[in-house]
Amino acid sequence: MTKIAIIGFGVVGSGVYEVIRTNATQITRTCNSPIDIKYILDIRDFSNHPESHLFVNDVNTIANDDEVSIVVETMGGLEPANTFSRLMLSKGKTVITSNKELVATYGDELFALACENGCAYYYEASVGGGIPIIRPLRTCLAANRIDAVYGILNGTTNYILTRMFQANVSFEAALKEAQEKGYAEKDPTADVDGFDTGKKICILSSMINGKKINHEDVHTEGIRSITLADTEFASAFGYSIKLIGSCKRAGEKFEVVVAPMLVSKDSQLSGIDDVFNGVMVSGNMLGDALFYGRGAGKLPTASAVVADVIDAAKNAGRPYFAPWSKADENVLVDYDNIKASMYVCVKANSKEDLEAYVSANFSDSTKVIFSGDYAAFITDCAPIKEIKQKLAGIPASVCNTLMVL
Amino acid sequence: MTKIAIIGFGVVGSGVYEVIRTNATQITRTCNSPIDIKYILDIRDFSNHPESHLFVNDVNTIANDDEVSIVVETMGGLEPANTFSRLMLSKGKTVITSNKELVATYGDELFALACENGCAYYYEASVGGGIPIIRPLRTCLAANRIDAVYGILNGTTNYILTRMFQANVSFEAALKEAQEKGYAEKDPTADVDGFDTGKKICILSSMINGKKINHEDVHTEGIRSITLADTEFASAFGYSIKLIGSCKRAGEKFEVVVAPMLVSKDSQLSGIDDVFNGVMVSGNMLGDALFYGRGAGKLPTASAVVADVIDAAKNAGRPYFAPWSKADENVLVDYDNIKASMYVCVKANSKEDLEAYVSANFSDSTKVIFSGDYAAFITDCAPIKEIKQKLAGIPASVCNTLMVL
Repeated sequence: MTKIAIIGFGVVGSGVYEVIRTNATQITRTCNSPIDIKYILDIRDFSNHPESHLFVNDVNTIANDDEVSIVVETMGGLEPANTFSRLMLSKGKTVITSNKELVATYGDELFALACENGCAYYYEASVGGGIPIIRPLRTCLAANRIDAVYGILNGTTNYILTRMFQANVSFEAALKEAQEKGYAEKDPTADVDGFDTGKKICILSSMINGKKINHEDVHTEGIRSITLADTEFASAFGYSIKLIGSCKRAGEKFEVVVAPMLVSKDSQLSGIDDVFNGVMVSGNMLGDALFYGRGAGKLPTASAVVADVIDAAKNAGRPYFAPWSKADENVLVDYDNIKASMYVCVKANSKEDLEAYVSANFSDSTKVIFSGDYAAFITDCAPIKEIKQKLAGIPASVCNTLMVL
Repeated sequence: MTKIAIIGFGVVGSGVYEVIRTNATQITRTCNSPIDIKYILDIRDFSNHPESHLFVNDVNTIANDDEVSIVVETMGGLEPANTFSRLMLSKGKTVITSNKELVATYGDELFALACENGCAYYYEASVGGGIPIIRPLRTCLAANRIDAVYGILNGTTNYILTRMFQANVSFEAALKEAQEKGYAEKDPTADVDGFDTGKKICILSSMINGKKINHEDVHTEGIRSITLADTEFASAFGYSIKLIGSCKRAGEKFEVVVAPMLVSKDSQLSGIDDVFNGVMVSGNMLGDALFYGRGAGKLPTASAVVADVIDAAKNAGRPYFAPWSKADENVLVDYDNIKASMYVCVKANSKEDLEAYVSANFSDSTKVIFSGDYAAFITDCAPIKEIKQKLAGIPASVCNTLMVL
């Protein structure tokens, strides 16, 4: 019998409760012993809950109960989740989290604290919701040097972009739809400006690097700049547009970027639509493997948390190794030095001048497509700063530039 | 330091050697200690191999060396792999295999033998080559009741079907191409007649069931019957055709089938082409998750074997639980009782008679498409025996019937 506590009874926390209650038989068989929820911490009133006796509002009730060996933190946000997680780890209790912000920001310190106290800090649900991605990266691909991990890590923006492509609705209208369906928050900044994706790709990047990669240092663009002209041109060139979090090994350094990118229709990522997520992992022996599924949602995310609980229960008392430690130097390649092909959308007064400039400055195969007042082309692969320099003199106003994956 | 032996130095075995040598630093870091290859067993002459001193040809040299704690079996086939694996397990050595035939046929006995002798039997590379699918099914999805697992489990047939669809070449021509490219064997039976897929889906089905599901009991069809008329009609209806291994929970029983199926273009599986594999897993909490990658090939498969070696080294001395035990009753739903929509291709003398029969016997929405002498339609979902009964009286000769996924 493993006794656990859940701190934070919101969407994911109540999902964890539901998964444990619904699949109790299954879980007991997998664990070889039952998982028992001893406490649920939430400051709100749950006196009408069928198991209202489980609810407590003092975190010390849990911290001071030696019977509780595993604590699920599903509060989200930095505080008080950070303080509560440290308290539990310092008491030798293993903590399971779905809190990407906390893992991306203080993961290195929380892992170290777990090591010091003979417990562990698990975070499978912090990236990709229900899609198993952390554990495959950690164990299944242990035999590979991971050369790249990239993909669609945010369902809200993928829904918006899918609607823009499939229904030809503007960014604003698609965002409104997403809010009405509950896919986007009232303040959609974290999703549409790429910060959510940034935290997730930094968690994956830190795992590969073995040292923290700071999300604040990563070049991060959101999708607000994408227009229906862009979706039209991208389709014409044979691409879709996806908000991509990408980490690629470049010698001893890493190219980490969050940006809306043109994704070839030949890529499996291109067909991942609506709120679905997909993560591509490239190993030096494996080649490419893709993990696809619902990247969010109450029960998928909760099932990833519970998988961690089961793993923690089975591994109780075993040595734990931190997946990454603090950063000791900057391993990021400067954005301007990353080599990429760029999609460029411009508004040109003269078709002839534009075509002449493009053919003089970019390779012969660079094809310019015109549509109304707008034109677009895709450059050869080159350091981004060189592309920017060439675009500085273009006889047109640049409306958008997007990296090609 | 963990000392291992490799038995069978063919494609996968030599790949295991290469992965361990190439990624030694990575592997040592993940294991927290090096993996050392002490012996390689192969009856062929490897005296010119740079590490020829590792080669032995008596299995007892390995069996009687107490320093060797892990044995990689990459011989393939039932014998002598079965005898050698039992010998190693009986000596308390953990065995890692890529041998789907052995796992599908004697897995239950080998797991039990491992349990008796305090060691383990790992088989990640037996299904899906380099795609991590066994471990996600076992651990990541521990919190779910798995309701279905299905997908493209054989790269050879997927290559052939892709060529038939994309290049409009016949089955025979596509098979010849596959043989020329080394994707298909001279005797392609195991692949094109579905037996390879059958063993793989039975391994996945046995995991979900917890008891052996015998591949000989599973309805198995290959792809030899697929014609260019079928690919044309399937496309017209909005489908591709894929050889699918499928296991679906039906109450206390399971519907397990291997057959070429029509897969909607809306399904992620439909876009998985060439030699790639993809496995969809449906959990009662997770929803659907897809695992995609190269299902075969020397280094991808070898990297899955090495991931198991690392896992075994890290878990040495821990209790091991058999993933499934022997079958005690038949849990398979009879093929004829499975409910499905069926695609039917016929050669009809009279369009009018055919349309009249279809509209009298199938639902109003059943649309018949004609092309030259052939016609095709897709039935409503019904028990397969009912559909067969209705087709018995059809005023046309039935050329092919295929299940719709």
